[in-house]
Amino acid sequence: MSTVAFIGLGLMGEPMARNLLKGGHIVRAFDVRTDAMTALANEGAVSADSPADAAAGAEYIFTMLPSGKEVNQAVFGENGFAQSMNENTLFIDTSTILPADTDEISAKLAANGRKMLDAPVGRLAQNAIEGTLLFMVGGSESDLENARPLLNLLGDEIVHCGAVGMGARMKIVNNYQSTALNILTAETLTLAEASGLDVKLAIKVMSETTAGRGHMSATYPKQVLSGNIEPGFMIDLAHKDLGLALETTAALRTPAFLGAAARQAYSIAQSKGQGRKDWTSVYITLKQLAGLDT
Amino acid sequence: MSTVAFIGLGLMGEPMARNLLKGGHIVRAFDVRTDAMTALANEGAVSADSPADAAAGAEYIFTMLPSGKEVNQAVFGENGFAQSMNENTLFIDTSTILPADTDEISAKLAANGRKMLDAPVGRLAQNAIEGTLLFMVGGSESDLENARPLLNLLGDEIVHCGAVGMGARMKIVNNYQSTALNILTAETLTLAEASGLDVKLAIKVMSETTAGRGHMSATYPKQVLSGNIEPGFMIDLAHKDLGLALETTAALRTPAFLGAAARQAYSIAQSKGQGRKDWTSVYITLKQLAGLDT
Amino acid sequence: MSTVAFIGLGLMGEPMARNLLKGGHIVRAFDVRTDAMTALANEGAVSADSPADAAAGAEYIFTMLPSGKEVNQAVFGENGFAQSMNENTLFIDTSTILPADTDEISAKLAANGRKMLDAPVGRLAQNAIEGTLLFMVGGSESDLENARPLLNLLGDEIVHCGAVGMGARMKIVNNYQSTALNILTAETLTLAEASGLDVKLAIKVMSETTAGRGHMSATYPKQVLSGNIEPGFMIDLAHKDLGLALETTAALRTPAFLGAAARQAYSIAQSKGQGRKDWTSVYITLKQLAGLDT
Amino acid sequence: MSTVAFIGLGLMGEPMARNLLKGGHIVRAFDVRTDAMTALANEGAVSADSPADAAAGAEYIFTMLPSGKEVNQAVFGENGFAQSMNENTLFIDTSTILPADTDEISAKLAANGRKMLDAPVGRLAQNAIEGTLLFMVGGSESDLENARPLLNLLGDEIVHCGAVGMGARMKIVNNYQSTALNILTAETLTLAEASGLDVKLAIKVMSETTAGRGHMSATYPKQVLSGNIEPGFMIDLAHKDLGLALETTAALRTPAFLGAAARQAYSIAQSKGQGRKDWTSVYITLKQLAGLDT
Repeated sequence: MSTVAFIGLGLMGEPMARNLLKGGHIVRAFDVRTDAMTALANEGAVSADSPADAAAGAEYIFTMLPSGKEVNQAVFGENGFAQSMNENTLFIDTSTILPADTDEISAKLAANGRKMLDAPVGRLAQNAIEGTLLFMVGGSESDLENARPLLNLLGDEIVHCGAVGMGARMKIVNNYQSTALNILTAETLTLAEASGLDVKLAIKVMSETTAGRGHMSATYPKQVLSGNIEPGFMIDLAHKDLGLALETTAALRTPAFLGAAARQAYSIAQSKGQGRKDWTSVYITLKQLAGLDT
Repeated sequence: MSTVAFIGLGLMGEPMARNLLKGGHIVRAFDVRTDAMTALANEGAVSADSPADAAAGAEYIFTMLPSGKEVNQAVFGENGFAQSMNENTLFIDTSTILPADTDEISAKLAANGRKMLDAPVGRLAQNAIEGTLLFMVGGSESDLENARPLLNLLGDEIVHCGAVGMGARMKIVNNYQSTALNILTAETLTLAEASGLDVKLAIKVMSETTAGRGHMSATYPKQVLSGNIEPGFMIDLAHKDLGLALETTAALRTPAFLGAAARQAYSIAQSKGQGRKDWTSVYITLKQLAGLDT
Repeated sequence: MSTVAFIGLGLMGEPMARNLLKGGHIVRAFDVRTDAMTALANEGAVSADSPADAAAGAEYIFTMLPSGKEVNQAVFGENGFAQSMNENTLFIDTSTILPADTDEISAKLAANGRKMLDAPVGRLAQNAIEGTLLFMVGGSESDLENARPLLNLLGDEIVHCGAVGMGARMKIVNNYQSTALNILTAETLTLAEASGLDVKLAIKVMSETTAGRGHMSATYPKQVLSGNIEPGFMIDLAHKDLGLALETTAALRTPAFLGAAARQAYSIAQSKGQGRKDWTSVYITLKQLAGLDT
Repeated sequence: MSTVAFIGLGLMGEPMARNLLKGGHIVRAFDVRTDAMTALANEGAVSADSPADAAAGAEYIFTMLPSGKEVNQAVFGENGFAQSMNENTLFIDTSTILPADTDEISAKLAANGRKMLDAPVGRLAQNAIEGTLLFMVGGSESDLENARPLLNLLGDEIVHCGAVGMGARMKIVNNYQSTALNILTAETLTLAEASGLDVKLAIKVMSETTAGRGHMSATYPKQVLSGNIEPGFMIDLAHKDLGLALETTAALRTPAFLGAAARQAYSIAQSKGQGRKDWTSVYITLKQLAGLDT
């Protein structure tokens, strides 16, 4: 049984704190909205006056806050918990914040011999309730092993992504794809509907092609990531086919923000001489645009 | 045993014609590149002089050509096969062309009592060889039943999408998603690499979230398509998280053409008052932009 | 006094034909909408039955049609005027069409020893009425000199852009900038209004900066086009400032489609090592993306 | 003769401080890079140890700093000048920062009865040297009148944009247009070059159309801003013409990030029923997307 501070009792934080409580730990809870602490207090948690107060005597400090600004404030602000930590305390930030903010906070803590994991979560509120979150963890092996029994109360999958900051980075990468893909999907289904198709049939068809299954499980591992850019499907054809699709969206007046942008990338790949390579080789083109070695 | 004309013997067309030949049919083949007919002729196909010649006496006419222009030429051009068709001939266009071109060709044929299916294919060259293509078919039930024994030699999945033109439309919709998703995936993996992450680990993580699995199987059927826009994940949060991701791409100088465009759609949804709805409800916003009833 | 065929009597074509008539020429007019010929016929023009009929005996043939398809039909279609031309007839296409279509038409004509100018127009309907159009002309010097007296009845500025096809290309370039700039301007003024600014004051301020005056007259000639990429204003600063602007549009939920796309280009320039060069040096970066020698 | 603190002696700040010195004022200068103070000290300025020290006894405090973070630090950080201000001191921030940051800083100062103008500058380093900057000022009339004699030493145009924060907003609006227009111009000139046109001739042509002169001086004041959306040039035509231009860029593989995005806006305007209105009426469409009353 450990003493655990939990700061930030929102949609995600409250059920997470509750699962720690259910796991038999002493939970010292804090939220700037004092009424957010009531329910947990009724279930046995200690309501704290400040982050520093929550962290008093705690072996573990969890934060689940909206942005880097609030995390920074909770750690280093007036009544922040930095003053309550010692070299044995482990701070675990589960918020989704800018990697640059994580780097700044962890560097300041490390300079004073304080330990930190960044451990943002995948999945949704329902998973927080059920204790089936996915953690993307940045930090040392030993700190992760130290935290693992607690994380196991909150989630059912823990991915060690590298040193401190790498959990935050993995979360950003995941969010980039999922939030943009959501818009792309909405564009595609709008095109399906405007075309007079049965939208559910369209989804059924796409569920059996790269369109719906995603390229990550399908084309990328077999092609460019394994060093093979012989064409399964050529960039020249992708450029042509997307051109037909855009001409159709223009005729139907359906939004094609992402498709229009995507075609530019194929054009660049073509002018770099990649036109007859596999469509996954745009990855090489984009890495060149980013100035990465390829 | 039927007589089948096959026009267009490229990467896809040649193995398709071969499978018809193997199926016991008489195949009359034509391609503008005369040497493209040699291999099939050696296996028993008849080399024709023109589309009209190929279609002479044929009960079925297949085309697999690069664009609507070539299809139009094969049907109605000098020595086009329109002159060889009668009311019992069935023309099956498996090319990927503009739906508007399909509409124009089928309308001209129908005006003369000629029958047509548009049946573009999903999947790749390897599937054409193996006879495991997916057909997206537009046309009447009876014409599809007439063609089905032949299509079964070429593919293992036949989806009837509606009247003539609906196969072409389904193909366009599928291509829109798959070709744009390819670029999005390349952007995301470039961000992962620039972030110092193990790209294969990033794919593993995303394979367990909506990022990699796609929204079509995950969020859409459960939410907006079933009429539920209560938030599993709010548009306001998607807007914020994508903002963090874009700030990160800007700092790392990685390309984010699609992510940048996607954020605009979230902004529009917010200004339409959808911010606290489920992220799949951007579908409603985009349909409004397209002037569709919602 | 010459005999001039004029095909296409729309918003632009009709006043152009009228000015030729007023200039003392015999005008043989044709439009697929027969009632479009009535007004001109009342003023002395000859109503023709077809493009071929209009061109019968004409020394000059003008077209002003919606797209390449219609121009092609007027020249080479059934009753097209190609059959009425001889080696002394000069065909002047003032339509805005794809340069590729211009190239195809002019090549077919040239193969038969027929002469053509492409001469699309700048400016608006009012200028067509007033005879103050701007012509962007592609073709030989001698053909242009031959046409000049007629063009002078229709416009007050004639720019010789190069060989046949170059007029069409100049028009496309001009339209690319003007139609996209229109959207950018609307985005900027929407941002101004959402910011609570007086929109007319914003225009006044911008009229004294590169924002409103355009880069063509201001920064480009002095910098990258004269070989000088020493910074008057650095790409790094443009990237930063546009970032602040995008953060503001995201907070105000104003559309920033073009700004979001533009920032990507600055990122690419930065990763190519151009960050501390003048902002006009993105021209060099974009030329590299297009595979042009720089 | 006044005592003036000047904080931030970079490319812009140093010549601005020098002009105040030349104008006969006592200048107390500070920069975190101590060597940046040397030149001014040799010319008579006082080198200060901190923002607070610079502001000691000053009637005016100028800042010219890279971002809101640095401005915030200079005002409220350790040794910030907030402690040196009294109710008669006027703080003038000439930095380009987020309006939200300006609002936050000015609100905190106002709560303590401290006065502030935001006065970011237009134009370039050369103008800072010559004292010909353009100031976009937010703040009260009386504070502006108080500052005017000093601002007149630094610039030759002072635009009062409204209350505190409105100068920052005007700057953002201006930068949005100018930085995005720079990329659009580079795209257009790349297209011109790839088309084989003489780029300088292209600029000459565009200098006589809305393309190069901008819409702000040309179409907007005459049309949508004066309530007139009768078509000088229709949205339907702009959509068509931009489509031709994009087809050309796709064929030439030239980048068209902004043009591709712009076409989406025309599509939305069309589906909103604006197709036959003047192209400037996209402003109405975009304001609707932003949720503004129109």
